[in-house]
Amino acid sequence: MAAAPPPLKDELDIVIPTIRNLDFLEMWRPFFEQYHLIIVQDGDPSKTISVPQGFDYELYNRNDINRILGPKASCISFKDSACRCFGYMVSKKKYIFTIDDDCFVAKDPTGKQINALEQHIKNLLCPSTPLFFNTLYDPFREGADFVRGYPFSLREGVPTAVSHGLWMNIPDYDAPTQLVKPRERNTRYVDAVLTIPKGTLFPMCGMNLAFDRDLIGPAMYFGLMGDGQPIGRYDDMWAGWCIKVICDHLGLGVKTGLPYIWHSKASNPFVNLKKEYKGIFWQEEIIPFFQSATLSKESTTVQKCYVELSKQVKETLGKVDPYFVKLADAMETWIQAWDDLNPAKAN
Amino acid sequence: MAAAPPPLKDELDIVIPTIRNLDFLEMWRPFFEQYHLIIVQDGDPSKTISVPQGFDYELYNRNDINRILGPKASCISFKDSACRCFGYMVSKKKYIFTIDDDCFVAKDPTGKQINALEQHIKNLLCPSTPLFFNTLYDPFREGADFVRGYPFSLREGVPTAVSHGLWMNIPDYDAPTQLVKPRERNTRYVDAVLTIPKGTLFPMCGMNLAFDRDLIGPAMYFGLMGDGQPIGRYDDMWAGWCIKVICDHLGLGVKTGLPYIWHSKASNPFVNLKKEYKGIFWQEEIIPFFQSATLSKESTTVQKCYVELSKQVKETLGKVDPYFVKLADAMETWIQAWDDLNPAKAN
Repeated sequence: MAAAPPPLKDELDIVIPTIRNLDFLEMWRPFFEQYHLIIVQDGDPSKTISVPQGFDYELYNRNDINRILGPKASCISFKDSACRCFGYMVSKKKYIFTIDDDCFVAKDPTGKQINALEQHIKNLLCPSTPLFFNTLYDPFREGADFVRGYPFSLREGVPTAVSHGLWMNIPDYDAPTQLVKPRERNTRYVDAVLTIPKGTLFPMCGMNLAFDRDLIGPAMYFGLMGDGQPIGRYDDMWAGWCIKVICDHLGLGVKTGLPYIWHSKASNPFVNLKKEYKGIFWQEEIIPFFQSATLSKESTTVQKCYVELSKQVKETLGKVDPYFVKLADAMETWIQAWDDLNPAKAN
Repeated sequence: MAAAPPPLKDELDIVIPTIRNLDFLEMWRPFFEQYHLIIVQDGDPSKTISVPQGFDYELYNRNDINRILGPKASCISFKDSACRCFGYMVSKKKYIFTIDDDCFVAKDPTGKQINALEQHIKNLLCPSTPLFFNTLYDPFREGADFVRGYPFSLREGVPTAVSHGLWMNIPDYDAPTQLVKPRERNTRYVDAVLTIPKGTLFPMCGMNLAFDRDLIGPAMYFGLMGDGQPIGRYDDMWAGWCIKVICDHLGLGVKTGLPYIWHSKASNPFVNLKKEYKGIFWQEEIIPFFQSATLSKESTTVQKCYVELSKQVKETLGKVDPYFVKLADAMETWIQAWDDLNPAKAN
């Protein structure tokens, strides 16, 4: 059961927050050039981002976001890479791949450059198996299958909505771990893709992430971070908790593992600690909330699920901090803005 | 957080069902010789198993089992490798490693022989993390840790009760998959150990398995298979479903992944199909049963959990086939026999 070939150019957009590193696109040129790029500039709109020749791209800065969304632009973070989710909203493609500009092409153990995008596409095109664990990992990969004792009724799997890739070199650690282990590097290449089981949450990192916009797009909201907000570096985590609860409810799959990218540099742990410290407290209450969150039978679309979840966030997490009341409102605004820009998909 | 060194000889027994292959112990000699072996002969007790010089072992055949357990010997399978669980019961050690006699020493990608036992011991001595998924796999391995977004309150983990190892070469497939893919070989070395999340079942294979007898031993019952039974090749699966439900209830962890052994030969798929076919139907009802099984607060020991589970098996699966009534009775007999032989551990 080998994966089908990657989809055509017309089915995938690459979304990148501000590009600060000119080498970034040059290094990815052989892999990205055939695709359309959506660049969402996270800071001062008067600054110019230069994109090398030969790339097909559109670029949005804060002024564009304000113009396109009007008052609903309040749901898009400013001065934070969380603004990238605006790119998910304006895309018209079925698949999104998002990557940070400090992530370069990694090599596999044989020294071959890894085409991360190709692996994400394989992951998204193969079913997921969230209802029972397969000990040989993704049963749909070449040379693997379901092992003895795997129920036959579950072997069809479910559609895969999200493919979460990993990082060689600098691991995605929080500030306390960065401070404690400044020299730790990830050198272990784990040749596996696996489905995160139903009912299990995971820390979704936005550095190297692909998803099926038609299946889960409206839940891929990166929250309120950065300028004027009490928290940062939880944008992708927030999205990860929300999408997992919704995927579990709707019978969709989330995969993690391959592909690896090369994460070139660690961000400053002191700056990170400042952004993260409220999150470090809050996640102790947020995670039990998401672990026990259930959605009603009436929530049959991603949008309906997301709005229902936003009400639970307001009701429950609103007691933890007023920030979550604001976030819950922004979640609703996000869905309204999504439906404005994507009327055909609105429900 | 590197693993502590392997425990001394006095803390682990190696349990092996009938040894049909004389090369088996020779190949494992450098790794096994320092440990005590418990060999449980699965067939005709008049046949003699020859064990090479230099091994410290005890050997039990059917006559020994009948003599030691009396009428309770009815819970131990005959003419099936499921009889190995008798070895778990008579052991007095804290840890058990069990392996099939067609499993040889595998090599890692650098060509080095893998000390499977050493890796199992590392797995068992490090905590498990069943409550939240860590995307860099086992956070307690050298060079890894908990990633950003992993709740700090969950980083202590829980004690690991079971370490499930994998197989290079011949994968552990059911008869239909063997028939469809006669030439498939597992050549992918996945350099990972991971915790099976709470609430998720997995197909536990008994070929290459280690566990903490003090933590989970009384649940490691391999059921009624072989002579006089309508089913085979579900002994380890049955144990896997039971131990996972009980580990989840008691807050214990189950790991899978490394170490690999080299599985040398596929068993006959036609013979396997005959043994398995009822299981293929039954597992469609067994798995939903275990997925929804809950144990009461009063079940605070493995024994109490197992007896409670046996009653649920009788009540629910007894309606699927009378075999499960017999199996449920055998589960209770097993616990009685366990407590007879292990009075200090009885509760």
